[in-house]
Amino acid sequence: MIIDALIDKIQLTGNPSVIGLDTCIDYLPQEMQEVCTTLEEAGKQITKFNFDLIDTLKDVIPAVKVQVAYYEMYGVEGMKAFRDTIAYARSNGLIVIADVKRNDIGSTAAAYSKGYIGKCKLAGGEVTPYESDFITVNGYLGSDGILPFVEDCKKYDKGLFALVKTSNPTSGELQDKIMDNGKTLYDNMATLVDGWGAELVGKYGYSSIGGVVGATHKEQAQAIRKAHPNMFFLIPGYGAQGGKAEDLAVCFENKMGGIVNSSRGILCAYRKPQYAGMDYKQAALTAAIDMKKDITRCL
Amino acid sequence: MIIDALIDKIQLTGNPSVIGLDTCIDYLPQEMQEVCTTLEEAGKQITKFNFDLIDTLKDVIPAVKVQVAYYEMYGVEGMKAFRDTIAYARSNGLIVIADVKRNDIGSTAAAYSKGYIGKCKLAGGEVTPYESDFITVNGYLGSDGILPFVEDCKKYDKGLFALVKTSNPTSGELQDKIMDNGKTLYDNMATLVDGWGAELVGKYGYSSIGGVVGATHKEQAQAIRKAHPNMFFLIPGYGAQGGKAEDLAVCFENKMGGIVNSSRGILCAYRKPQYAGMDYKQAALTAAIDMKKDITRCL
Repeated sequence: MIIDALIDKIQLTGNPSVIGLDTCIDYLPQEMQEVCTTLEEAGKQITKFNFDLIDTLKDVIPAVKVQVAYYEMYGVEGMKAFRDTIAYARSNGLIVIADVKRNDIGSTAAAYSKGYIGKCKLAGGEVTPYESDFITVNGYLGSDGILPFVEDCKKYDKGLFALVKTSNPTSGELQDKIMDNGKTLYDNMATLVDGWGAELVGKYGYSSIGGVVGATHKEQAQAIRKAHPNMFFLIPGYGAQGGKAEDLAVCFENKMGGIVNSSRGILCAYRKPQYAGMDYKQAALTAAIDMKKDITRCL
Repeated sequence: MIIDALIDKIQLTGNPSVIGLDTCIDYLPQEMQEVCTTLEEAGKQITKFNFDLIDTLKDVIPAVKVQVAYYEMYGVEGMKAFRDTIAYARSNGLIVIADVKRNDIGSTAAAYSKGYIGKCKLAGGEVTPYESDFITVNGYLGSDGILPFVEDCKKYDKGLFALVKTSNPTSGELQDKIMDNGKTLYDNMATLVDGWGAELVGKYGYSSIGGVVGATHKEQAQAIRKAHPNMFFLIPGYGAQGGKAEDLAVCFENKMGGIVNSSRGILCAYRKPQYAGMDYKQAALTAAIDMKKDITRCL
């Protein structure tokens, strides 16, 4: 089961962290940025940067998270970079989380699913244009908008992370509100996630249907960990967003149960004073190892 | 203001409906489907079908809604069809709603926005790869995930529709739950939408920041219409999903205040007994006119 494969890979590398390839051209070194005068060239430079990071980091990290927004903004050429980045990461043995936060009514959710984790039917056969191991989804529409994704997870051994408690400052505006059953919206969402994933619990006790739980809201994360023991957490918000290793330790139980994302902190490490003199590959590798140490010392 | 342009166009055509170009290859006539042996060919056939429908419908309808899921599932080649469809519809004077339901933390929302309604910066200048007039978004993350889109709406005279009460059967699972202020989640969402759009209310009293309110939940739609008079509704769920003209009339006030979507009902009209003998263009045109009559008789 894919969640077991992810946990095995975390244990193999000793590293419960995932690097977010949120590669916009602003994050590239000056000389690469200057070449990006067209969408096509932007796509090429981003692809080169990503391939370099995958080559450099593949033995140190279990997974990459690829945030599609940073590719969509470069149009069709950006989506080529997204497609090629995902394929290259998988061919190098990394688990790929496509961070797409898709959501819609059932028939449309099924269409999205075909693009990333299911199969898209053509006249001559089937393909998966952006084949990933996990995707992220948003459950505001309720179960019938998520079940098509879950069906494909079952059929093709894939996984997903549904937004539960997000890392952004205003996530509490709706998510923290108490609903008529006495529980918060995020806790109600977490209960739905448990239900969607009940048949996909693997050998470590975690389901391939997980939740996104931000590193920036310690108390809520702790409450979710306690109430939803089978939920594997994708944990954004570490580093650039302010989440600290000490705080996100509550997401783990016996050093298991989550994977922590860092994007800008790794991609742009070469601009930080502590990595001065390193190129972006060396700096990313050093920052990824520093992150691993920082997190594992707290678990 | 874009919301005024949309309402003007609705009045010009006398037609408060929008055709959803949710064009998967299953909806194409058999002889076109058979050609779709590759993603590239699928993209071409879908583009041809869409262009034909735009040519046929452009004087009868004010707008098209393009559901990106049906393009993403065909990968990069599908996104070419999405890009070209949007551009062709706009060049033919139609208002374009990119139905993407994007959502993320602020910095990522800003990246999405650049792809559809803002500007994406390159070394030589700025572009908008998939320039649309309106997009759809999902506000589960709260204000700071939506405000980057709203900023671009202000800057570039664009609009958006945030999910409020969706048309799918299980939309009530979370959206109908009463929160601690005594109001439903969808009503709390609607109040946020009002706030986001307060500075973008146009000459007809409606804001360019609107809401998605399904045609399949009459009572809820009526309550939202009453409590949120400045909110313009994008109304899915008519036709194939079971929403009836009699029911969705509650979304309107003096024949204004919303636009009703139909996708499969128009795209696949040529398969219906009542349009037998017509090709897909004639059938779509006849079905679009039938839909216009059906809705306007109830307002």
